[in-house]
Amino acid sequence: MKDNSTLSNNPRMAHIHANGGHEAKETELIERRGKHFAGSFLFYHDPVHLVRGEGVYLYDAQGNEYLDFYNNVQSMGHANPKVVEAIREQAGILTTHTRYLNEKVIEFAEEAASTLPDALEVCLFVCTGTEACELAVRIARSVTGSNGLIVMENSYHGNSKLVTEMSTAYPETLRGDTPHIEAIEPPNTYRGSFRLDGDNDQLLGQQYADLAESAIDKLQRRDQGLAAFVCDSIFDSNGALDAPQDYFQKLSDKVHSAGGLMIADEVQAGVCRTGTFWGFEQYDFVPDIVFTGKPLGAGFPVAAVFTTRQIADKWASQDMYFNTFGGNPVASAAGKAVLQFAKEQNMTEHVQAVGAYLQTQLVELADKHPIIGNVQGKGLFLGIDLVKDRATREPASELAAKIPDAMKQKGVLIGLTGAFGNCLKFRPPLVVEKPDIDRVIVALDEVLSELSDNKDNR
Amino acid sequence: MKDNSTLSNNPRMAHIHANGGHEAKETELIERRGKHFAGSFLFYHDPVHLVRGEGVYLYDAQGNEYLDFYNNVQSMGHANPKVVEAIREQAGILTTHTRYLNEKVIEFAEEAASTLPDALEVCLFVCTGTEACELAVRIARSVTGSNGLIVMENSYHGNSKLVTEMSTAYPETLRGDTPHIEAIEPPNTYRGSFRLDGDNDQLLGQQYADLAESAIDKLQRRDQGLAAFVCDSIFDSNGALDAPQDYFQKLSDKVHSAGGLMIADEVQAGVCRTGTFWGFEQYDFVPDIVFTGKPLGAGFPVAAVFTTRQIADKWASQDMYFNTFGGNPVASAAGKAVLQFAKEQNMTEHVQAVGAYLQTQLVELADKHPIIGNVQGKGLFLGIDLVKDRATREPASELAAKIPDAMKQKGVLIGLTGAFGNCLKFRPPLVVEKPDIDRVIVALDEVLSELSDNKDNR
Repeated sequence: MKDNSTLSNNPRMAHIHANGGHEAKETELIERRGKHFAGSFLFYHDPVHLVRGEGVYLYDAQGNEYLDFYNNVQSMGHANPKVVEAIREQAGILTTHTRYLNEKVIEFAEEAASTLPDALEVCLFVCTGTEACELAVRIARSVTGSNGLIVMENSYHGNSKLVTEMSTAYPETLRGDTPHIEAIEPPNTYRGSFRLDGDNDQLLGQQYADLAESAIDKLQRRDQGLAAFVCDSIFDSNGALDAPQDYFQKLSDKVHSAGGLMIADEVQAGVCRTGTFWGFEQYDFVPDIVFTGKPLGAGFPVAAVFTTRQIADKWASQDMYFNTFGGNPVASAAGKAVLQFAKEQNMTEHVQAVGAYLQTQLVELADKHPIIGNVQGKGLFLGIDLVKDRATREPASELAAKIPDAMKQKGVLIGLTGAFGNCLKFRPPLVVEKPDIDRVIVALDEVLSELSDNKDNR
Repeated sequence: MKDNSTLSNNPRMAHIHANGGHEAKETELIERRGKHFAGSFLFYHDPVHLVRGEGVYLYDAQGNEYLDFYNNVQSMGHANPKVVEAIREQAGILTTHTRYLNEKVIEFAEEAASTLPDALEVCLFVCTGTEACELAVRIARSVTGSNGLIVMENSYHGNSKLVTEMSTAYPETLRGDTPHIEAIEPPNTYRGSFRLDGDNDQLLGQQYADLAESAIDKLQRRDQGLAAFVCDSIFDSNGALDAPQDYFQKLSDKVHSAGGLMIADEVQAGVCRTGTFWGFEQYDFVPDIVFTGKPLGAGFPVAAVFTTRQIADKWASQDMYFNTFGGNPVASAAGKAVLQFAKEQNMTEHVQAVGAYLQTQLVELADKHPIIGNVQGKGLFLGIDLVKDRATREPASELAAKIPDAMKQKGVLIGLTGAFGNCLKFRPPLVVEKPDIDRVIVALDEVLSELSDNKDNR
């Protein structure tokens, strides 16, 4: 499998370079799109024109096959037959809101609750991660009577006004004046203020958690109080990190002492991505509120907030909230099918096994490519921190920026992450198998060799 | 058709009163729901347990048929075969985000643009009306450099933090501190500050539009400036109103003079509801930004923002925005199918004809029932303002509150609206036909007779 010619000689990839990168149809689509869209937002120098998906594979109009190591919405596989069938069946029967009794939404809630710690028994259904984040914060503010929020530096949670304010990856000019937000440094033990060094590694959780103290203090001095700490436990936009094992528990103690709630943003880490059903389970703590989005409906816009009965009842007694599409029977059918598929396939075990294999292969590649500074993350959400020099750990951002396009030319779709844009992001549909991983490793080996050998890229 | 026994003798309705309003299955569902939901939010004293929908009809678990005069999401009819087929087909092929080239989203954008005034050529796809409202305001603020928003009193636009602040139907305690919002009185010419009286009716548009002046002034004095005026042209939460014909044009002049943009919230009035394709077309003015949600995807969460190339380009040059599910291929297939169905069925003409028939029948009922103060609204979004006394126009709120349950017992689902909760709301799927309307009129006649004759209800 490690024959360098495996992929580039693949006849199914023959059209990729034809006509300067794309063909007449793609030129036409880009033109038609340009008439009605604002900005481009298209991935890749030569955008991919996708027409079909199946499992871990995407296909373009010329029949080229792409191994998808980027998309987390279709985490049970593109066009998963069980999910598609559930959507098809229910769409022909009934779609209406949850103010009428309907069994589908109840079954979905029961299925979701069965995946969560017992205390998180109340489900609120919405449509997107942004709406879920909005609702989680709304509940936390209502219940605590406070306004302040602590998030990670360089975080991304979504796109509404409030959630943009919480998404510190946006420049300050777009986030505006945010006295109600404080950001703390993510627990990056490879590149952050406190690093694994073999001597004091057991102190790292406490050291990073202690950073919340000054954030709480600042919020209190601005009369905001603390409503919640909101965190994505896989640290997607920060390069996919492994936090110290006791980090969240120590953070949770501080947040609770200050009267705030712990909110887990499980849009990225949720639904088996990291090898446990929910990302926070990696860290032996139970958040007060959990929300998820992307992976829950396999492309049908389904998102949810989960919390305790005590929090839910206090909130419901003092607020009014309704979401038209949230939990409608088709959304519920899709969501339930996703959760059932994950259970039936023992997806957490599969992710642990295949994720460990991917991690091992990436670590092996590091022997050959000094640009690989660190392999990090959990399960099937892994990051590679690329460096110009392993001693200084200077981010290899320019070279990193060229890799997704180069990998695409070899039929593999990956992304970038991290505050310096120097981390490669591997986040395939969870149904990926070991031979798929072998193909990615071959392609990455080739790409790193080609780009690193050209000293202009160093 | 006006035989009072038509509906109540219908054998299909026989189970409705069995077992004190609902049966063992419904008791079980309410219990199971109670375990996992926050609050009830269920419509009706005895909630309806729906299992199937078709056209204008909904069916409960006992096979009872309900004529749906409430749901505007399935405006092309419950389980519309063309829309269902579009969702079924595309769900099995591909669902991914719009950062890859895909023809479906382009076709949807082209179809949508073809329904709008030429100037509104740019489409941005999101998932819900709330997300669309957020994005419309984000664009307006970015382009104007101002923060202030004018909305209607007792308005409802959605459920995020910002959109809740804009939704003045929420109590102030839930909206919080909103220096960036001003609300003006809706142009209710039956019940408002300026009324149709036969003498100065041609002045009403100007009189109501003039109310924006002090709102603009207040925003400017609070250093907010004016980003936009946001209005639902059917005034859903204010009872479904007919504004004076020149109201929006005069308002538009004032808003533009103050540097603001006109945003039309077409979640309610859009997609043929009022007898024109878009609600604002009733008033001979073109907004700068239009957004819609509910009716666009027939239950698939699809929403959109439309604006001019000039506004879109200025915004895109100074902001970053991405929506994961918005405009995904299945969402686009659903949205395109809805718009095509509306066109192929000449839905605007159908709504004009059937809506006029409904209005005539309701006005005729007013001869018999003095509680009917006014029949208002447009197309297939009509309101009846119920009064205790036609001279004083005192709202008959207590009696109105009993009507939806009473109508449900006769197999017709309707809702309430208005700041006093005294307006009946008639908003059926647009595929409704005249015989359906006859059934509603019979039921309403019966209900008004029964409730009005009982003087405890007056």
